[in-house]
Amino acid sequence: MTVDLYDTTLRDGAQMEGISLSVEDKLRIAKRLDDLGVHYIEGGWPGANPKDVEFFQRMQDAKLNNARLVAFGSTRRAGGEASSDPTLNSLITAGTDYVTIVGKAHDLHVREVLATSLEENLAMLADSVRFLKSRGKQVYYDAEHFFDGFHADPDYALSCLRATVNSGADALVLCDTNGGTITSKLLEAIERVQAAFPGVPLGIHCHNDADVAVANTLAAVECGVQQVQACINGYGERCGNANMASVIANLKLKLGMQVVSDEQLAHLSEISHFVSEVANMAPWPQQSYVGASAFAHKAGYHSDGVIKFESAYQHVDPAVVGNQRRLLVSELGGSRGLLDKLGDLGIDYPLSRDEARSLTETIKEQEAQGYQYEGADASLEMLVRRTLPGYAPAFNLDDFWVVLRRSERAERKPPTHRHSEMQAEAMVKVRIFGRGGAEDELRQTAADGDGPVDALDHAVRKALGEFYPGIDNIRLVDYKVRVVDSNAGTGASVRVLIECSDETDEWLCVGASTDIVEASWLALADAYEWWLLRHPA
Amino acid sequence: MTVDLYDTTLRDGAQMEGISLSVEDKLRIAKRLDDLGVHYIEGGWPGANPKDVEFFQRMQDAKLNNARLVAFGSTRRAGGEASSDPTLNSLITAGTDYVTIVGKAHDLHVREVLATSLEENLAMLADSVRFLKSRGKQVYYDAEHFFDGFHADPDYALSCLRATVNSGADALVLCDTNGGTITSKLLEAIERVQAAFPGVPLGIHCHNDADVAVANTLAAVECGVQQVQACINGYGERCGNANMASVIANLKLKLGMQVVSDEQLAHLSEISHFVSEVANMAPWPQQSYVGASAFAHKAGYHSDGVIKFESAYQHVDPAVVGNQRRLLVSELGGSRGLLDKLGDLGIDYPLSRDEARSLTETIKEQEAQGYQYEGADASLEMLVRRTLPGYAPAFNLDDFWVVLRRSERAERKPPTHRHSEMQAEAMVKVRIFGRGGAEDELRQTAADGDGPVDALDHAVRKALGEFYPGIDNIRLVDYKVRVVDSNAGTGASVRVLIECSDETDEWLCVGASTDIVEASWLALADAYEWWLLRHPA
Repeated sequence: MTVDLYDTTLRDGAQMEGISLSVEDKLRIAKRLDDLGVHYIEGGWPGANPKDVEFFQRMQDAKLNNARLVAFGSTRRAGGEASSDPTLNSLITAGTDYVTIVGKAHDLHVREVLATSLEENLAMLADSVRFLKSRGKQVYYDAEHFFDGFHADPDYALSCLRATVNSGADALVLCDTNGGTITSKLLEAIERVQAAFPGVPLGIHCHNDADVAVANTLAAVECGVQQVQACINGYGERCGNANMASVIANLKLKLGMQVVSDEQLAHLSEISHFVSEVANMAPWPQQSYVGASAFAHKAGYHSDGVIKFESAYQHVDPAVVGNQRRLLVSELGGSRGLLDKLGDLGIDYPLSRDEARSLTETIKEQEAQGYQYEGADASLEMLVRRTLPGYAPAFNLDDFWVVLRRSERAERKPPTHRHSEMQAEAMVKVRIFGRGGAEDELRQTAADGDGPVDALDHAVRKALGEFYPGIDNIRLVDYKVRVVDSNAGTGASVRVLIECSDETDEWLCVGASTDIVEASWLALADAYEWWLLRHPA
Repeated sequence: MTVDLYDTTLRDGAQMEGISLSVEDKLRIAKRLDDLGVHYIEGGWPGANPKDVEFFQRMQDAKLNNARLVAFGSTRRAGGEASSDPTLNSLITAGTDYVTIVGKAHDLHVREVLATSLEENLAMLADSVRFLKSRGKQVYYDAEHFFDGFHADPDYALSCLRATVNSGADALVLCDTNGGTITSKLLEAIERVQAAFPGVPLGIHCHNDADVAVANTLAAVECGVQQVQACINGYGERCGNANMASVIANLKLKLGMQVVSDEQLAHLSEISHFVSEVANMAPWPQQSYVGASAFAHKAGYHSDGVIKFESAYQHVDPAVVGNQRRLLVSELGGSRGLLDKLGDLGIDYPLSRDEARSLTETIKEQEAQGYQYEGADASLEMLVRRTLPGYAPAFNLDDFWVVLRRSERAERKPPTHRHSEMQAEAMVKVRIFGRGGAEDELRQTAADGDGPVDALDHAVRKALGEFYPGIDNIRLVDYKVRVVDSNAGTGASVRVLIECSDETDEWLCVGASTDIVEASWLALADAYEWWLLRHPA
């Protein structure tokens, strides 16, 4: 039994609220999808989106190692000619060997959306497939709303499939376009299609509106469907499409199908993360297999369990999908979990039971102030190191002063959406602690920046850079702010998470305060200090 | 066919990374779960968590209209006595009529985690159930790792069930503790259990590690299981538990089971949102049925479709789950979508085609600067209104000046996690435009605050409050910051989302700038102006 992975992240996935991919983004994602080993990459809809025309042009020079590129479009217009149809011709221009055309398979949609007759829709399907076949394409038919159509009028839904099969379609892809079909109903319909079209290759395309898209996809494969359409991270219109990351991992690890190699599977978490970065979507920590929390253990008895044997509360070895186990530090985890966590962080100082308990207390106090160390490993490490005997910090920020000014011409115009003259300046006093008996040194510096945190960052780097020139290698890659107690309005505590990277590491720090600039500063200070520990001058 | 909803948000759900519920939080959630109509509320584990002891004490005075409260705990210790076991006695002290005990059903876990014999585990199960039954409790057995245990050693897994049935257990809850069982394997095991224990009530408890928890839960119900355990919003350890919101909607709308009333179902979105607020977790927009994007349409042909008939791209009517349709404004949606959107916003000014096209252009330019209007309806409305002839804003912020100061005693101490002396002050010049021929008025005010945005907010309210005293009713309820182009570090563009509310409305505004304070100001200005439109002095 074999199955083809058909990825539609670049077409259906891009329809998700909040996603907007440039041509460059699409090229980068296509490259990684190919590395991952998917068999088809649906690149876009050249007839509907000018950016997609450019994408297909640029892909003509790109080399794909594993995947075949597919262009997507709709059938010819009602009452028109296939050979002169702009959408169908844009599919030819796209220059791919494979094309997928979407067409109605639900009588209601033919009448209400296309506003044409049931017969004309059958002709549109047949003509479009015949035209594309005559141009030498492999043609897949995405039967839109197939399952809803089948349950409303099975004969008509099947006759749509027949129209394309008789015209030479190479596979019938059954689409649960509205995503509302549950597994048992889905299988009923697939079995009827298999009986009606023995030997014709089938595909499945599920959406997650009923929260069962991945299960439906797997059930369809177990039932004999050969092509699965899905999107990385479950991106897609409304609740998203079936999640390709989950589908791949399940096919390989649960059904034992060699859809990708072991090595490719080991890059699954990384590629999922890469796509969310390019799409500028926050990764979903709870995402199956690849999420940051997917193998994170919080309850004390779970942490204890996985310390005893790895698979106690893990359904697969996280390494096979490129993920890792994490033990969380929280009120529900005891000091045992904390000690093991410190081991994971590489802190091998032997804490006594009392020290461990007092550290757990400190963490709780910090959490009450708005800190959250789950994830912010670098800040947790700094918190611990500062309590250890003999720890000497590299610097202290004694004072800062930030001034922000904005002025606007006093026209009768709204104060938004226009070029303003915004200035942000920071003045800092930084104490660099002397090493090996040397005197402390005080530096007072000033800088401006794009906003208060940037100005502060520049001024502090000026002061520290004199002693630690490598500090300029630290790059801030993400910055997140969360209000901890929303009820207090603009005066609420805020928690800032700063993710930094240099050539070799990525680390995450947290700061909390009622002042967003102070919270940012606290996180930045942890980030510098963490880096300086590893790169002493 | 009937099925009971067993909610474990307060116990298993609270194990999710990032969640920490106070007793007060738990009481508030319990109240809403009861309103929603779940049949059981698992309140916590009094033997493991002191907060849960207090919760059960306080629940003894609370009235539940629909739900029965359940206390959760583990079986007696290996080698101990049930009657003197602290965990079992804490279940008695909790004072509930219903208790659920978790116990091993997988031979590997008995040996490796409990470190006891297979026989002793059977005795632990039997003794614990017998003890609780002797105290008059209804007892449910959560068979931990049942499916993994069944596939490893079916006889032993079944003998664990038998030990509790023979001791009087009232239901056997089959737990996919590690969440890695796919639907077909799950059904195999359930059918074997049904054959072995005809007539014994069964329950199902799924985790989402393979991304199929909801589908597994539904399949189990279709197979005859009578109790479903799940958590609101799919909260829970690692990838979470089966999502109770999806389970309820699917049972009612897809399987036609009257698990809750129509009226209760219409509160599903609201209750899901309420729980995420109390848990301080960002709502997941793509969440099936209840997410903000669950009925959001982005692709032009989808928007056109739902305008022609509502169900074109919606599997259910959003109103039945208390959600609503949203048409998104984006590069993929055309001016047609924008016009319909304006109708939704109550802007009935008849835009010409050219005006609509030019507005679409403006939105695109704003998006290129980091704005995103999806969701931020109030800012979109302000953007549109400002382009309409005859629009007169209420005020303009001509200048602001914000000063932030922080000083710290220059000890040899790290610059974090300590009481600092942080000061934030703002000075503003606000122009209030005259109405009906009146002169403009200029007000210069100053205020301090907890951080720069708070100080600015206070100063502006001082100036506007003289003219519009009602402005103090505006409450900021959420504040979110996102870096738009992370690669630019602390100098990147940031997008600020501010959610406001007063007694009657909730509205969301967006601002973007490289300066976080300016971005916040732009969002705040929209929020004030939007409110002033509805509450002219």
